Amino acid sequence: MTFSEALQWRYATKRMNGQTVPQEKIDKILEAIQMAPTSSGLQPFEVIVISNPALKAQLKDEAAKQPQIVESSHVLVFAAWDTYTEERINAFFEFNNEVRDIPASQTDDYRKSLIKTFTSKTNEENFHHAAKQAGIALGFGLVAAALEEVDTTPMEGFDPAKVDEILGLKEKGLKSTLILSVGYRDAENDWLEGMKKVRKPKEELFTVID
Amino acid sequence: MTFSEALQWRYATKRMNGQTVPQEKIDKILEAIQMAPTSSGLQPFEVIVISNPALKAQLKDEAAKQPQIVESSHVLVFAAWDTYTEERINAFFEFNNEVRDIPASQTDDYRKSLIKTFTSKTNEENFHHAAKQAGIALGFGLVAAALEEVDTTPMEGFDPAKVDEILGLKEKGLKSTLILSVGYRDAENDWLEGMKKVRKPKEELFTVID
Repeated sequence: MTFSEALQWRYATKRMNGQTVPQEKIDKILEAIQMAPTSSGLQPFEVIVISNPALKAQLKDEAAKQPQIVESSHVLVFAAWDTYTEERINAFFEFNNEVRDIPASQTDDYRKSLIKTFTSKTNEENFHHAAKQAGIALGFGLVAAALEEVDTTPMEGFDPAKVDEILGLKEKGLKSTLILSVGYRDAENDWLEGMKKVRKPKEELFTVID
Repeated sequence: MTFSEALQWRYATKRMNGQTVPQEKIDKILEAIQMAPTSSGLQPFEVIVISNPALKAQLKDEAAKQPQIVESSHVLVFAAWDTYTEERINAFFEFNNEVRDIPASQTDDYRKSLIKTFTSKTNEENFHHAAKQAGIALGFGLVAAALEEVDTTPMEGFDPAKVDEILGLKEKGLKSTLILSVGYRDAENDWLEGMKKVRKPKEELFTVID
C-alpha cells in the first residue's frame, strides 16, 4: 500500500472485531510515536498501552461507551505533562547531553531560556502546549498503523478527569488528552466503513502566497 | 526509503539550501495534511502556504530570526480556528451531508450536541482544541515530507500575534499555532545534521498494561 493509498484506506473505525494486532505491528506504531518530533525535543507526554480487557471496559464507560475501545486490540492513552517544570526540563537536558556526549555548558543558555519561557506561563497553557505535541505524535502513530494495515480510532470524546483517575495519571503529573484505539475494523457492523471521506477542498484549506 | 528509515532520516532542519521543492512533492505534503483526521471531522484550521521571499523574510523576523524560514522552499503556517462557533459547525455539517448525500435529519442530533459542547467552553479552550488538531495534521505532513525525502522544520518559536498580523489571520477568525519550513537541508552548515537522535527510551515513554 502506498502512502497515498494508506491515507485513503484509514478512517476513524467505529467498530472493531476484537482480533489481536501482532506485537511487531504494535512496535512499529510505538516506534513512530517515539520518533515524532516535539517542541525542543522535550517529549512532554507518556503513552499508556493497554490490552487488559477489564481496564478497557472501565475506559469505555468514561468514553461515551464507544464500542471500539473494548473491541480493539490495544488502547493507547496519550497523557501530556500537566505543566513544564524546571525539573522536567533539566532532566531532559541531562539526558540529551549524555546521549550526544556534550558538556552541560553547551546547552546551558538554551536550557535556561526554556525554563524561563515555560515557567512564565500558566499550567493550563503549558498543558495545552504539551497536548499539542502529543497530537503530532498521534499523527505519526496513525500513519504508521495505516501503513501496517492496522485500523485506528483517534478519540477525544472521553472524560479526561475520570480516565486520569483510572490510570493514576495525576500522581505522575500527567493528564490524558487523546486516546487511540488500535485493532481491526468490523466492516460488516461499522456504519462508517466505506463511507465517502469528507475533506475540505484544497482551495478552502490552503491559501497559497507565491 | 522505508517508513522506519524515513523516521530516522528526518530531523528538525536548522539550515536549508534554498532549493525549490517540486510542486508534486508539495502536493503530496498538502494531501497528507488534508487527509489527516480531526475531531468530529471539523478540520478546524487553515494552512497558509508561502513561497514568497519577502513574506518569508517578514516571518523570519518574528520567529527568532531562524534562517531556515528564508532558506526554505515553502513555509506552511498552520492557523487554527480562534474558537468553534455554531456557524462553523453548521457549515461543516452542510458540507458533510452534501458530500455523503444524506439528509440533515440524520446528523442533527450530533450537530446540536457538538454545538452545545463547544459553545459551553471558552474561546481559549476551543482554540487549544483546534490547535491540537492542527498538530495531528502537522504530523501527517512531516511524515509525507520525509517519505518524499524533503526536509522540514516544525517550529513554535515565533510570535503568534505578529504572525497573525502579517497574514491577516485575526480577520479570518484564525490564530497561528505551528509553522513548518519545507525545503532541503544544507548539510555542511547545519550543526544538527548527523547529530544523534535523542528520544526517551521505550520503557520511559510507554507504560504497558497487559
